[in-house]
Parts: sequence; C-alpha cells; structure tokens
Amino acid sequence: MISVKEAKNIVLNSIQDFGVEEVPFLKSVGRVLKEKIVADRDFPPFNRVSMDGIAIDFKEFSSRLRSNKQLDFKIERIQAAGSKQITLQNSENCIEVMTGAVLPKNANTVIRYEDITIENGIAIINIDAINDAQNVHQKGKDGKIGDVLIEKNTLISAAEIGVLATVGKSTVKVVKQPKVMIVSTGDELVGVNEIPLEHQIRRSNVFTLVSLLERLNISSETAHITDDKPILKAKIKAYLEEYDVLLFSGAVSKGKYDFLPEVFDELGVKKLFHKVAQRPGKPFFYGKTENCNVFGFPGNPISTFVNCLVYFYPWYYKSLRIEATEETAVLVEDVSFKPNLIYFLQVKLESKNGNLVAFPIKGNGSGDLASLVKTDAFIQLPNDKVEFKKGEVFSVIRYR
Amino acid sequence: MISVKEAKNIVLNSIQDFGVEEVPFLKSVGRVLKEKIVADRDFPPFNRVSMDGIAIDFKEFSSRLRSNKQLDFKIERIQAAGSKQITLQNSENCIEVMTGAVLPKNANTVIRYEDITIENGIAIINIDAINDAQNVHQKGKDGKIGDVLIEKNTLISAAEIGVLATVGKSTVKVVKQPKVMIVSTGDELVGVNEIPLEHQIRRSNVFTLVSLLERLNISSETAHITDDKPILKAKIKAYLEEYDVLLFSGAVSKGKYDFLPEVFDELGVKKLFHKVAQRPGKPFFYGKTENCNVFGFPGNPISTFVNCLVYFYPWYYKSLRIEATEETAVLVEDVSFKPNLIYFLQVKLESKNGNLVAFPIKGNGSGDLASLVKTDAFIQLPNDKVEFKKGEVFSVIRYR
Repeated sequence: MISVKEAKNIVLNSIQDFGVEEVPFLKSVGRVLKEKIVADRDFPPFNRVSMDGIAIDFKEFSSRLRSNKQLDFKIERIQAAGSKQITLQNSENCIEVMTGAVLPKNANTVIRYEDITIENGIAIINIDAINDAQNVHQKGKDGKIGDVLIEKNTLISAAEIGVLATVGKSTVKVVKQPKVMIVSTGDELVGVNEIPLEHQIRRSNVFTLVSLLERLNISSETAHITDDKPILKAKIKAYLEEYDVLLFSGAVSKGKYDFLPEVFDELGVKKLFHKVAQRPGKPFFYGKTENCNVFGFPGNPISTFVNCLVYFYPWYYKSLRIEATEETAVLVEDVSFKPNLIYFLQVKLESKNGNLVAFPIKGNGSGDLASLVKTDAFIQLPNDKVEFKKGEVFSVIRYR
Repeated sequence: MISVKEAKNIVLNSIQDFGVEEVPFLKSVGRVLKEKIVADRDFPPFNRVSMDGIAIDFKEFSSRLRSNKQLDFKIERIQAAGSKQITLQNSENCIEVMTGAVLPKNANTVIRYEDITIENGIAIINIDAINDAQNVHQKGKDGKIGDVLIEKNTLISAAEIGVLATVGKSTVKVVKQPKVMIVSTGDELVGVNEIPLEHQIRRSNVFTLVSLLERLNISSETAHITDDKPILKAKIKAYLEEYDVLLFSGAVSKGKYDFLPEVFDELGVKKLFHKVAQRPGKPFFYGKTENCNVFGFPGNPISTFVNCLVYFYPWYYKSLRIEATEETAVLVEDVSFKPNLIYFLQVKLESKNGNLVAFPIKGNGSGDLASLVKTDAFIQLPNDKVEFKKGEVFSVIRYR
C-alpha cells in the first residue's frame, strides 16, 4: 500500500498526449488552446470614439477658453460607426461622432452629448473641464499588431471567445479529448430501466463517472461486463487497443470474483500501484499499457467518485498542460479520524467574509451514494494526526 | 439613472416561468430538477456485505472467545454479489461473502480476508477484536423507501446522477431552458470570417454572450441587424413574439443611430429602467412585454459581459428557483475610484490559506476586450466611498 502523495506522483508522471485538432471557435469553450492567439491588427485598430457627442480640435478649444471666447462649434457632418473616416475641414467647427466610430481626421478630442447643447446646427460646449484626447480609445492602446493576446495552453472561456472572434479565428487548434471507456463489473448490477430483484441494485457508478467527465468536456462510452474471467479478458483486450483511457468501477478488491488485477496482468497492463492509504477508495488500482491508462476504481460509489476527482482529474489536467487551481478551506468544526489513512471528508462549502468554510457532513461510509447530494466537496485530512480542529485549513476538492 | 441595487431588484421581480420538460437522466446535468426524487426501496435494499471475507454468527464467535475455544469456521458455501440470499445452515460454520452481496440468512457479522486464514475449506479468525454486525451495511441505513433523496429545485450534478440511476429514474422532469435570441447592432461590425476594412471591426459580443449562456446550459441563437430603424423594428417585432428572452448588444446609448429604446417603445416593450449608476455598463436598458424579457446591454465588450453576469445570470437563476451562491473575496491592494458609481473591477482570484483573494488588474476601460483574458472575475466596489483598502472584503462575480 502506498501513500496518497506517492500515488498522485505516479499518476502525474504517466500523463498522455492526446494530440491536437481544429474546432470551430464557438465550440472551443472548456477546451485547451494549442496555439498562440496574436492580434491581427492594433487593438483598437483605429482611434476609436468611445462616447456619443462631438469631436473637436483640442487646441482650438483651449485657445478659445484662454481668451474667453464663445465655445460654439458649427457641426460639419456626422461620423457614424462603420463609416469611412471623414475630415474636420475647419478646426473652428466640429463633427458629430458616435461610439465605435473612427475619430475624424484633424479632430482629437470628444465631448459627450451630456456636456453640450445643440441648436440650429451649432454645438455649444457647457463645461470647461475638458482634457486633450478625452473619450478617444487610442489606436493600439490595448495591444499592437503581433502581440500575443491569448497564450498557448489556455483553458478557453467566454472571455477568450470574444478575443478569438475579434481576431478572426473562426477555427482554433485545441487538445483532442481522450477516448474513454467506462466499465462497470459486478453481477449484482442491473440497468436503470430494470426492476432489480431483492439481491440486485441498479448500475449507477458508470453514469456518475460519465457526468464527472462531462464536466471536463469529455464524452465517454460505457459498458458492463459480468464477473466472468474469460469474458472480461476478451472485452478488456479489445478496449485496451481502442481507447486512450479505461475507467473501471469494481472488481479490484479481495473478492473471489475481483478478477481485474489478474486480467490486467495477463493482458500486459503494467501495474503502477494497487491500494492507496486513504479512505474511501483504498483498493484503487492504477496501471498502463503503451497507449492506454487504466484506472481501476473500487466499486463503492463514494470510492469511485473521490478517486476520479483526486486522481483522474489532475492526470487529465496535466496531460493537457494546464494548471489545476488548488483551493483550501477552513474547517468549521472539530473532526477526529483514527485510522492511519488520508481521509477524504465530505463537506458543504460556504463563502463567508472572504473565507471558504467547510461544514463536515457525515455519511454512512463509502456505500452511501445519497450523501453526495448533501455535500459539495471533499477536504483532504492528513494522516499525521487524529484530531482536526475548527479553524484549521485543508485542501479542498470540489465537485459542484 | 437608478442604482445597481434598484436595478437588480427590478430585474429579479420580473422573473419568467419557462415551463417543465422531461429529459433522459444522463442529459440532466446542469438542469434544475422539477420533481422530488424518492427512494423506491430501502438504501441499501438488503443487509449488504461491505468487505470481502466470511460471514458468521456473532454469538457463536463471542461464546467461543469467552471459553477460549478455537476460532475456526468451516466454509459452507459462497455468497456472491448478485446471487440470491443463501442460508448459513449451521451456526458453527461460515459463508464466504463478497462486497455487494446480500448477507446470508443466520449470519450477521463479516470478517475481512485480511483478518483470517483459509486452509482446506476452514477459515481461522486471527483477531479477537470483532464487533457484532461489523462490515455489514444495514438495510435502510442510508434511507428508507419513500424518503426524499433529492429535493425539487436542485441543480443536478454528477452526485445527483448516481442517485437518479439507483432509483431507476431514466427520465426526469427539469425546467425548460428559455428560448433566447442574441442580437448585435452597429454598422461597424463584420463577420468573424471577414477581413474588416480600416473603420470596421469583427462581431464579438454576441459570441461572448453565447458562451456565457452555454455556461448555464442555455443554447441561444444570434442575429445581426444594421442600424436602420424600420429594419430593426420589423425584426425585433418578430423576435418578441418568438423568444422568451432577447439580449442586445449596443444601440442603447445617446448616439444618433441608437434606435433601440425608441424601437422598444414603439413595439410596446415596457421600459423598466434605462441607465444604471455603475461602471462599466451604465447605459443598460431593461424592459419587457407580457412574454418576453428584453436586456439591452451597452455595446462595449466589458459592458455587455459584466451586465450579463450581474443581471441576466441572477434573473435566470431566480426564474429557475435556485439560489445562486454568493461569494466574497479579499482585496489585496488599495484601489481608488472617484465617480459616484458602483465599480465592477476586474480581478484575478487566488485561494490562499482558506481565503479567496482578489488581485485587481487594470484594463483600458470598457472597450478593452483582451483584458478579460487576464482576469477571472469582477469585484463589486460600493459607491459610498472612494478609497478601497487592502484587506477589505467585497462580493465577487466569477466568470471562470
């Protein structure tokens, strides 16, 4: 049995390269960018009017202000957004300008409608406090042509989508998603649509895993194999060739029909570890072939769930070369846990005055699937002590 | 101009009922449940073996222990997971049991393989410290038949998916998503695939909005309308009849071609407010008809973005009857902001020792789309003061 830390290290040293594909930019949210996004023009691409009003020559304004002259400017024309740049012919005049328009030639300063009065084609400026170049978003201020706007290996969100659109990237290179097969075992399991007999229960772990992977934008397939060694072996042999990742739920513990470790061995899956000093999820098996990573999660629902979050998630993030954000939370009541194991404790999270606080919720052990509905996350309690005090800070693994 | 608080109240008092639909349970992640999920059987449905090993009668064990007798138990049979309950015929014997199996009749306690030795069909128990009923997950311990396992109005995550599968809910009732049309205006805009002329830029806000709505699992449609009043009017008239929600970007400020407020008025959209004392996003228009909510966001990219998060998101959550989680963060450096407006300041978030800390990132105003890539969230700074100090706590609106 190895420690959680060792197990994590081994998993993180077995990352995989899924390759690159090109997708329509609007489908790229949640994917990891595999190219730098560069400005195709200056940002903004022209001196951009940022308020509706009039554009003037600031020199003219300030000289009139100094000499106490009238602040009236004849309106020559209108510069609309989307129209070619026009020219202020006479610096004693002004041009009406709209937000988003190009600043007219020979003008340099914009005064918003709120600060002027327009009568008979003349704009009168009602305030003195005007700055040179105000309300003009200067060409290139936010970025120059050729600047990197989004770095490679960025996880794409709505914020990046706007930039991709602006620079005309209608398709983008992103990391391919792994091809994943999720397999349940266990003869006690029947389908969701079936009525279980007294000694049966419905399959649920594979669907939980499908949903946990969907959070990562991975679509996966599922299968169920009966506890029959030759059948297991034949099917898994085929899966190992076809998929990048196999996730199993069940059949990795000490039971008479827990054939998976033997089957993996016989099929040439290199065992990297089996059993981790943690609760829940101790009998976790992890191995690999040249092209396939094999996560053998124990079959209890909470064990499968927590192991997917603690091992598969970081493995996936690192495979994609993105840094997973690490979070910590403050425990709000004392907890004690005696076994010499890392304890993943279910908690309900709350944001309080800038703190993330964790309320422990006791379930009935790793079989208590329904308890997950009442919590948001696990906190990771170390095994170097038995008493965990209110106010102490631990790392937290969210699933909502 | 009204305050952010008033504006939010008005928006939250105009929520809409989108109706209910039934979807396959595996497609229900991110949706809001519109029925109670009830246990169809006890949880677990039988006394469930939770360790691989042997099942015995505890009375027999303790009487032998008291009288210092041998702790050897002849193995009668095997109770596998998924098999009908068998019976321990003689209480001096034992039955091998597998995790997930029904506890055999006349047995009540399970001893794991780690604590026994098996030789010639006899299991010898190697430890004394055994508790009555250990390693048995008692029928009904996690829930009784008829118990509510998931409440109505729960936002469905991977945790709920497992429970839905277990109780056999292959389809579930969820809130229908609103039918949303996102409209851009502005003659300076060209398509993502086009090469803009000097005075043009590409459309981006509608795509940002599409992505922000996708985060809520809402799929939306988009359209662009030129700044031509009769065309705007005809198109919007049709949209008002066909959609639950219209989101606009642009044409709500003071420009000559900002026709939207007039068009809305002429089409019978009741104006609930226009302009909010905030930066960015001040010229925000909000109105409604009997069946359609109209969000008129200002056209600057950050304005559209922040208004969608600050107004549309909570409106949507409240329409679905779910409570949005509110978060706060600690400011890590002093900030000053003079205008008498609520200031939505862009920040980069970090989790530090149980605290959520916010690093302000200064962009170049509401037109600086690229700045969104560098930040994760906005913090909301109140307008009752000018100086915001390091260490103070403010509410935070994440977009990653």
